[in-house]
Amino acid sequence: MEKKEYVTYGDKTGCSCGCGCGGSGTGITGCRFSLSPMTDDFVDIILGAVGKTRTDKVWQETGKLSTIYRGKQIHVEDAVKACFINAWHEGVHMTMEATYSRGCPGDISGDSFMTEDDELLNEPLIKDAHFPVACKIALYPMGIPDYMKYIAEVVNHAIDLGIYKRSAHYCTVLECDVQELFDYIHYVNTYCSEHLSHYVFEVTLSVNSPTAED
Amino acid sequence: MEKKEYVTYGDKTGCSCGCGCGGSGTGITGCRFSLSPMTDDFVDIILGAVGKTRTDKVWQETGKLSTIYRGKQIHVEDAVKACFINAWHEGVHMTMEATYSRGCPGDISGDSFMTEDDELLNEPLIKDAHFPVACKIALYPMGIPDYMKYIAEVVNHAIDLGIYKRSAHYCTVLECDVQELFDYIHYVNTYCSEHLSHYVFEVTLSVNSPTAED
Repeated sequence: MEKKEYVTYGDKTGCSCGCGCGGSGTGITGCRFSLSPMTDDFVDIILGAVGKTRTDKVWQETGKLSTIYRGKQIHVEDAVKACFINAWHEGVHMTMEATYSRGCPGDISGDSFMTEDDELLNEPLIKDAHFPVACKIALYPMGIPDYMKYIAEVVNHAIDLGIYKRSAHYCTVLECDVQELFDYIHYVNTYCSEHLSHYVFEVTLSVNSPTAED
Repeated sequence: MEKKEYVTYGDKTGCSCGCGCGGSGTGITGCRFSLSPMTDDFVDIILGAVGKTRTDKVWQETGKLSTIYRGKQIHVEDAVKACFINAWHEGVHMTMEATYSRGCPGDISGDSFMTEDDELLNEPLIKDAHFPVACKIALYPMGIPDYMKYIAEVVNHAIDLGIYKRSAHYCTVLECDVQELFDYIHYVNTYCSEHLSHYVFEVTLSVNSPTAED
């Protein structure tokens, strides 16, 4: 009988807490995202946006379900922001589901470009784009009992910035300009990488929704 | 100067761990989900699916970004499954992002229908639907140091069921029939409600993708 190849998260590094602790030290930020333009032209829009985005400074992989960029935080953020802005089309309803993460104990040090310099490749081309975005966010600080206080911290920062719309079950709703939103995402990733060994930050952006109010 | 209304997750119940512990006892399962049919007819498809789904036994709210169902686990699962199957159209690429959750310390006991009986309203109408689904999943067991072992448990169960395709950065990829997938989602929610005080289970389903391989 064929032996099944099981996954072994939590015990492969042999640490006593069972949490792995293998990947936390790599410093790699990743973002897995999916664009969903709700139009018959979705293929052209997605491929056009991906093709227009400069990804020289991130490791990338595109599959049936999503695209992933990995590397230095600022370059991952730069490439995801560009891909979203490049996919925006006047009047076309589109969502982007994005999962930013860092420090997973099951992570590996490969599949990344950590030695790149800090010059952003896309920002000069997208910094003047402005359009309103609705967004839901959820932060998951992993492995610690007092995780709710970190969630409150980032939500309260959104309140300070004036981009918070409301709290809802299982998420927080933001509404603002696209530049403000990606500035906020940068703040969250920076705050989390400084305070948490492993976090996942889920963001779903929506533009041109035909639904007037939320 | 106006006083800002901040959120206070983590300290409002005064528990010493700072984790709140307010909502864990409510037993309410919730699912926040968004359908994204990638076609010009997306409004009709979404409204048609939502309208066809029997939601008498769940609390619901629909907004610009997503719909939420809350209540007993089996009824939430039944309604989400129905909404997805009702939205499926031959040849139309569609994704559904779904966040199942239970036990959030910030949760409240309202906005739910916990006294309903166990008879499923939609299952008799959708149990014979069959089509292939590609899916990425990510489980977040909150507040505990040994969370990776619970993730491994549910991934290995997918391997046992033969629906596991591969592990990827920040998610696990599954491929199977739609009925098998929702059976698996039921298993994960049941396993997590028995073993974890607070979990979040993120699932993104995809049908009719023009991308052949992942």
